[in-house]
Amino acid sequence: MPSAILLTHCPDQPGLVRAVASFIAENGGNIIQFDQHVDTQAGIFFMRAEWDLENFVIPRTDLPVFIRALAEPRRMTWSLHFSDQRHRLALFVSKDAHCLYDLLSRHEAGELEADIPLIVSNHETLRPAAERFGIPFHVIPVTSATKAEAEARQRALIDDHKIDTIVLARYMQILSDDFASAYPNRIINIHHSFLPAFPGAKPYHSAHARGVKIIGATSHYVTGDLDEGPIIEQDVIRVTHRQTVADLVRQGRDLEKVVLSRAVRWHAQRKVLAYNNKTVIFV
Amino acid sequence: MPSAILLTHCPDQPGLVRAVASFIAENGGNIIQFDQHVDTQAGIFFMRAEWDLENFVIPRTDLPVFIRALAEPRRMTWSLHFSDQRHRLALFVSKDAHCLYDLLSRHEAGELEADIPLIVSNHETLRPAAERFGIPFHVIPVTSATKAEAEARQRALIDDHKIDTIVLARYMQILSDDFASAYPNRIINIHHSFLPAFPGAKPYHSAHARGVKIIGATSHYVTGDLDEGPIIEQDVIRVTHRQTVADLVRQGRDLEKVVLSRAVRWHAQRKVLAYNNKTVIFV
Amino acid sequence: MPSAILLTHCPDQPGLVRAVASFIAENGGNIIQFDQHVDTQAGIFFMRAEWDLENFVIPRTDLPVFIRALAEPRRMTWSLHFSDQRHRLALFVSKDAHCLYDLLSRHEAGELEADIPLIVSNHETLRPAAERFGIPFHVIPVTSATKAEAEARQRALIDDHKIDTIVLARYMQILSDDFASAYPNRIINIHHSFLPAFPGAKPYHSAHARGVKIIGATSHYVTGDLDEGPIIEQDVIRVTHRQTVADLVRQGRDLEKVVLSRAVRWHAQRKVLAYNNKTVIFV
Amino acid sequence: MPSAILLTHCPDQPGLVRAVASFIAENGGNIIQFDQHVDTQAGIFFMRAEWDLENFVIPRTDLPVFIRALAEPRRMTWSLHFSDQRHRLALFVSKDAHCLYDLLSRHEAGELEADIPLIVSNHETLRPAAERFGIPFHVIPVTSATKAEAEARQRALIDDHKIDTIVLARYMQILSDDFASAYPNRIINIHHSFLPAFPGAKPYHSAHARGVKIIGATSHYVTGDLDEGPIIEQDVIRVTHRQTVADLVRQGRDLEKVVLSRAVRWHAQRKVLAYNNKTVIFV
Repeated sequence: MPSAILLTHCPDQPGLVRAVASFIAENGGNIIQFDQHVDTQAGIFFMRAEWDLENFVIPRTDLPVFIRALAEPRRMTWSLHFSDQRHRLALFVSKDAHCLYDLLSRHEAGELEADIPLIVSNHETLRPAAERFGIPFHVIPVTSATKAEAEARQRALIDDHKIDTIVLARYMQILSDDFASAYPNRIINIHHSFLPAFPGAKPYHSAHARGVKIIGATSHYVTGDLDEGPIIEQDVIRVTHRQTVADLVRQGRDLEKVVLSRAVRWHAQRKVLAYNNKTVIFV
Repeated sequence: MPSAILLTHCPDQPGLVRAVASFIAENGGNIIQFDQHVDTQAGIFFMRAEWDLENFVIPRTDLPVFIRALAEPRRMTWSLHFSDQRHRLALFVSKDAHCLYDLLSRHEAGELEADIPLIVSNHETLRPAAERFGIPFHVIPVTSATKAEAEARQRALIDDHKIDTIVLARYMQILSDDFASAYPNRIINIHHSFLPAFPGAKPYHSAHARGVKIIGATSHYVTGDLDEGPIIEQDVIRVTHRQTVADLVRQGRDLEKVVLSRAVRWHAQRKVLAYNNKTVIFV
Repeated sequence: MPSAILLTHCPDQPGLVRAVASFIAENGGNIIQFDQHVDTQAGIFFMRAEWDLENFVIPRTDLPVFIRALAEPRRMTWSLHFSDQRHRLALFVSKDAHCLYDLLSRHEAGELEADIPLIVSNHETLRPAAERFGIPFHVIPVTSATKAEAEARQRALIDDHKIDTIVLARYMQILSDDFASAYPNRIINIHHSFLPAFPGAKPYHSAHARGVKIIGATSHYVTGDLDEGPIIEQDVIRVTHRQTVADLVRQGRDLEKVVLSRAVRWHAQRKVLAYNNKTVIFV
Repeated sequence: MPSAILLTHCPDQPGLVRAVASFIAENGGNIIQFDQHVDTQAGIFFMRAEWDLENFVIPRTDLPVFIRALAEPRRMTWSLHFSDQRHRLALFVSKDAHCLYDLLSRHEAGELEADIPLIVSNHETLRPAAERFGIPFHVIPVTSATKAEAEARQRALIDDHKIDTIVLARYMQILSDDFASAYPNRIINIHHSFLPAFPGAKPYHSAHARGVKIIGATSHYVTGDLDEGPIIEQDVIRVTHRQTVADLVRQGRDLEKVVLSRAVRWHAQRKVLAYNNKTVIFV
């Protein structure tokens, strides 16, 4: 039985919970989950409401009109989703297999609540992995000279396949500002450090050189500023003086996989609200 | 500016969020925090609503009558609290100082959001610690022969000081069923293991003998069943073959302190709902 | 350049470090890693010494004779390994794919430092997964009536393929005492709870019913006592009242994968010493 | 029964373990703990050996001469300690009480394996806390104009009380280069972030603004470069969008306390070796 999901934020004001809860109840919806958060410092109200459509009297196609009427006088920014509209992901990869395998095996197990119509890579390396799971694999080489053209081809694929979200599963290429800003809060990256520590290239080498006792990984939305976008999820693991850089790389893979997959899942479930370069995660 | 806090649970049914949110909004309240949870398996709805009393039109003394009218037709179990009614804690201790010092220094720092009118112990050992922080210290020795009498004296102190909650800060005595059932969900214990592993006496010895790689501590409400009450909070720390039992005891103290203090704080903030021998924690 | 690894334990006595270090140095070996541990309570000395064979004057084939001469007067229990003797693993699986995929993708990435000559299952379900990675897949159905015969067939496969270690990657069948005792400290299981909490069947259901705030997974050597063997590794993750049993199952998979793979890797690297139903892990 | 502790590092070379183990064994010592580490990339050998003095034939006062003879041909940098020489700590504090209370209560419980002859502060605020535990409290106000004079007074106190190590328990003042370099690897600071993220002032504010999902604390040796010295210990805790800056400050205190106390304890036990702006921790 499908449910509707309303994600919204707006200036904090009295009566917001009542307004949404009344709208749902008066039209026959039964609330499955209701989360709100007020950033008292910024004066912003955030909400995620999910309700059962079984006895809901407003048809799905008409629902946006009603939501708009609810939202406009309250200056709500909102998006409306249905649990049976599966998210469509494009995975961008390069040569490292671990995040790809992890996402594909979770996809096969039904964990991601999303479809994966295509994989894009700048190298042939991972084609066998993609083929094992039966996902079309598109190689688009990228050099500094051909970057613009390569991104145009990528964007054409994204359009053709009606992709909702691009997942950079250790893609290792820096996207152009144009590309990044074409998909706001729709590109999810995994960075192999505990941001804001060690942004940019070779974070495990930097972590080893600095002698940190804990390493991490960070999944975030991509913006034009490298490794500066809203953080969705982070996790860490202890290390000691015994670990070499190669050990950190190996141990870090386990973090990268799980952190990226959590971020993708929450995003696909419409549990993430981004604002002010931060995220509210309703889990 | 004080706020009102309504904690409630009831059979799940449509319109619960609306009913509470409308009641608050229609009477001039502004919601500060609103959390709900549905245990879909058990069919139970849980809610914690906190709202600002600044422009709220119903006087505090009348509020229970209104809440009752809201609750009865919906079969809500509820409790109502005000943020300026500070919780009153009695600390029960024995000979170990670490949880006591931790609670007292947090109390002094204003972290606990509670008052501590008295400390009760079965030994003189920690009197100097209590005196350093200026808290009255009552020694009530307990032997199997005098247990009933000792508990009667403890209960008299609890009544006289209008204690809301008893915190067993490594008290090391087993309370009688009568005592435990006189204060349902009002006695918080810290057990020095990751329950349900290693209940009862000497859990660090048992953990060492079993060769676990992680040890833990558990804070729970006390019931008549030893170490079987609703769990409020748990935390863990890694250990290796190198740790002796004495090391586990020492490292475990850090867990016990922080786990107990989190449980006490959440309880004092009315963020904990107990049901079916489990807890819902709205943090 | 291969190295030799000596794992040993014996009654604690003066001069043990000197004896081994001198033996290595006097014969031209250079120590790569040297770890020792004394269980002072039990009076047992444990050691793992790894040294470079480049200039070592004793031929590999003669080395056991020399080690025996070193060990006997000191009542050492010992085993000798060479870093270029790759460990041979048999994976036993049933219907759940996550641990299998995880081990196979780590194997492909070279993380495990072991070979996987075969996969054994009591069901056909995971044959496609095995075939994707090109590993022979043997189905041996098990019923209570055919268990003895099935185990005989399993043991024949293990013998034929010169298997060092059996990895129960969510195999879900209880091995007979005979089978378990035929491979002491050579069968690694992953149990989906934080042992000794929730042994046996359906631990996530039990964890949910008990209302724990942290769930775990445990990898251990299999003995005749179900879920009672020496623990190699454990890890945990926080959960809240919001998680359903299905959520615990899903989140637990991430623990199971990483805990099992760590245990297998350490075991294959000869970093694990089992004694008194516990383990010393030299990492 | 006291033990001797030898900490050393030197260029990696064959025979180092044998040389030290033989020296100890030949003179009647029994090794209690023996740890070594080789940084293969830098080619440096590190060692911590602890042995029982009960039957050791070399008198304590003569031991340095013998160690020197052992060390010089191998170019060892070394320090020699005895377990009955208790470490002497000076605590430097300002206005925040949590680290001070934590250290004092651990000291009282015998956890630190060190003495605390004095507390130094730039404010009167914490005098009552010091007096409760009976530790002399010296107030030395610091302004930019009087900093040099204040540090001279501090150094006189450190000399007079034969202080081994200065613990900056949220001291909040930046030490001069002169002061820092007068006590290399003898000043331990606690910084309230997961370094190298958020160095300098107000790290919790920065963490909140950046929207990180995990916060941390870092204990490190102080060098002339602010928050850049060798890291001894770090720990972290999860946070969500719900936490305000005040919440981060409160939760961070628990990290600061435990991270600082672990660092101080390991340092006092002579388990920390600093080199190349990193640390080897033999725990």
